[in-house]
Amino acid sequence: MNIEQLRADTAAVERLIHFNNAGAALMPAPVIQAVTGHLELETRLGGYEAAAERTVELENVYASIGRLINAQPDEIAVIENATRAWDMAFYSLPLGPGDVVLTSTTEYAGNYIPYLQLQQRRGIEIRIIPNDEQGQVSLTALQDMLGDKRVALVSLPAIATNGGPVQPIEQIGALARAAGVLFLLDACQAVGQMPIDVQKIGCHLLAATSRKYLRGPRGMGFLYVEKGLCQNLEPAFLDLHAASLLTPQSFEIRADARRFENWECNVAAKLGLGAAADYTLAQGMEPMWQRIQQLAGYLRGRLGEVPGITPQDLGAVKSGIVTFTRQGSSAAQVQQWLAGQAKRINVSTSTVRSTLLDMQQRGLQEVSRASVHAYNTESEIDTLIEALLRMPQG
Amino acid sequence: MNIEQLRADTAAVERLIHFNNAGAALMPAPVIQAVTGHLELETRLGGYEAAAERTVELENVYASIGRLINAQPDEIAVIENATRAWDMAFYSLPLGPGDVVLTSTTEYAGNYIPYLQLQQRRGIEIRIIPNDEQGQVSLTALQDMLGDKRVALVSLPAIATNGGPVQPIEQIGALARAAGVLFLLDACQAVGQMPIDVQKIGCHLLAATSRKYLRGPRGMGFLYVEKGLCQNLEPAFLDLHAASLLTPQSFEIRADARRFENWECNVAAKLGLGAAADYTLAQGMEPMWQRIQQLAGYLRGRLGEVPGITPQDLGAVKSGIVTFTRQGSSAAQVQQWLAGQAKRINVSTSTVRSTLLDMQQRGLQEVSRASVHAYNTESEIDTLIEALLRMPQG
Repeated sequence: MNIEQLRADTAAVERLIHFNNAGAALMPAPVIQAVTGHLELETRLGGYEAAAERTVELENVYASIGRLINAQPDEIAVIENATRAWDMAFYSLPLGPGDVVLTSTTEYAGNYIPYLQLQQRRGIEIRIIPNDEQGQVSLTALQDMLGDKRVALVSLPAIATNGGPVQPIEQIGALARAAGVLFLLDACQAVGQMPIDVQKIGCHLLAATSRKYLRGPRGMGFLYVEKGLCQNLEPAFLDLHAASLLTPQSFEIRADARRFENWECNVAAKLGLGAAADYTLAQGMEPMWQRIQQLAGYLRGRLGEVPGITPQDLGAVKSGIVTFTRQGSSAAQVQQWLAGQAKRINVSTSTVRSTLLDMQQRGLQEVSRASVHAYNTESEIDTLIEALLRMPQG
Repeated sequence: MNIEQLRADTAAVERLIHFNNAGAALMPAPVIQAVTGHLELETRLGGYEAAAERTVELENVYASIGRLINAQPDEIAVIENATRAWDMAFYSLPLGPGDVVLTSTTEYAGNYIPYLQLQQRRGIEIRIIPNDEQGQVSLTALQDMLGDKRVALVSLPAIATNGGPVQPIEQIGALARAAGVLFLLDACQAVGQMPIDVQKIGCHLLAATSRKYLRGPRGMGFLYVEKGLCQNLEPAFLDLHAASLLTPQSFEIRADARRFENWECNVAAKLGLGAAADYTLAQGMEPMWQRIQQLAGYLRGRLGEVPGITPQDLGAVKSGIVTFTRQGSSAAQVQQWLAGQAKRINVSTSTVRSTLLDMQQRGLQEVSRASVHAYNTESEIDTLIEALLRMPQG
């Protein structure tokens, strides 16, 4: 990896140490150019006319995302964000009374609430897959639970928002496939961070965002829908892009995954997402993942040197999301102290509100989260450690 | 109205005649600045950190939209686009077997398909309100139809996408209120074009877009939900912004209209929408509407002078959307000819695909659509007419 080039493409690193890549990463120059270049074209030509000039580039967005996750372009829907992408998948599933959804303790509360909503509305049942001793989904427990024929869906995040483990998604996918159960993967923190190959994982549905490790613009995301499933899955919402009105009594839903889209979108952000996928592909996902893990390992090691700091990450395989607590300080105080440094340091706070099951199980109310990306450096990590060492006791 | 200022704020008018305001209008300078200024801040600080710096401005977006349509800020949800805003309203309604939805012949096919979907899925019934002799919803017919206690919803567009009439929305609202029936107004083509006052209209739900007459960015829209209705209407989709997870078995949906939002959005576009509302408010909606109607009237008059052109607009009150057909030419040919002029002229094409009921009733396959905004001029209209007079016979 050419780290100097990565940093040259990320102008803000001159004045900023950004460890909030699990929130929203800094966009590299080609992404910014794709977004602002299209806004400029819209200003010059009109919104529809500018999109018409970018027909080829807009089609290429699907091909780029497909390459990134080893899917076909017609298995991709570009959706306003990962939440609505996930919603379009989950709420479209024909789940009914007694159907069981299996999820992990690391599930994001924003996905868990929809499970509860369908428990109330449609009588589905939620079951939590227990963890193994390393804190990740227990594969033997999962295999047992899949023995119940009422299990209709396995749905969980590849990487939790609060420094949870990298789940063994290929093994989970294989078990779900063997049991004939649908697998919906929330890959929000995974796409752009680690290699994601939907063929190897065997997931049927995958939702992801633009703004996190993929380094694309905010307000953009995508959904992967396996071709075999797509035509049998009627979207929860339809419009004139997802379907055609044939007569006053009949409509036809399009065949490809864009049946989960709607006609209007932020075209500039969509082109930005495509540019982000291209940028990531150009770096290579394997070396990117290695570098992120190496930097995160270095950060975890150095955090161990700081008195009063407790690392809070779980799992046999850990990601670039590094979490910790500091004795006598709230996460908000840590965040504020670091933001106030001469060279501003961005970290974030992850609370029990976002990952209730996991944090309650671990007796945590909140953690500080420093999420590293490939464009970060050991030297930036050293600066963070120095700032934490200098931080007054609470 | 200060037309010179409107044009000075719209740099593209120097080289472009834009009559596709019903598609996407040209953004004025303050909107472009709001969008690109925030993208620049995100590039400099990080996506979450930039949003945190704009907390006040982001709250003001709700107040600005509220002022624009005479609603309270907590009755507004900012949603990715008008389609999803409308979907979140319509699909959240508790419509069941035998419930009747009343709509107009001018309904957009993108809304009509969801009616058909719920006809298939939930057994609702769709009834079309007939038009009066001027081509708009017949109020006497509507009153009769509202006598049926199975009617659960009146849902129609204020202004059709294909040059239909400005519907008598205040009278429609009064009839729906008197009958105790919900009224969902699609105000996509109306907000920013004509005064919209939800108190006067009495609609319970209203969906609108940013990119059309409001002159905001693409990929942004909003939903109005009347306060009295809001707390009783559970959104079709939930997330961690719309609701909080209290325990592993319970969640609480927020009280205000933001229950129909989700957490992530294109923050730059949201600020752009707010700037567009402010810009519109500063011009004044009444003078804007008068100027648009005056320009559209001038255009309709001049089109009458062009051999082979047939105006296709209906209604006692007509909007800025001017439609016509040209003998011997397709709408695509008209659009292409005008786009190829020395000073490019943007018009668009509206097909039976978008407004099936109305176009079939009128025996039309497509129309050319020239939609004028307050920043257009009589001189631009004269240039359009000259170009149409010069157009070779098909």
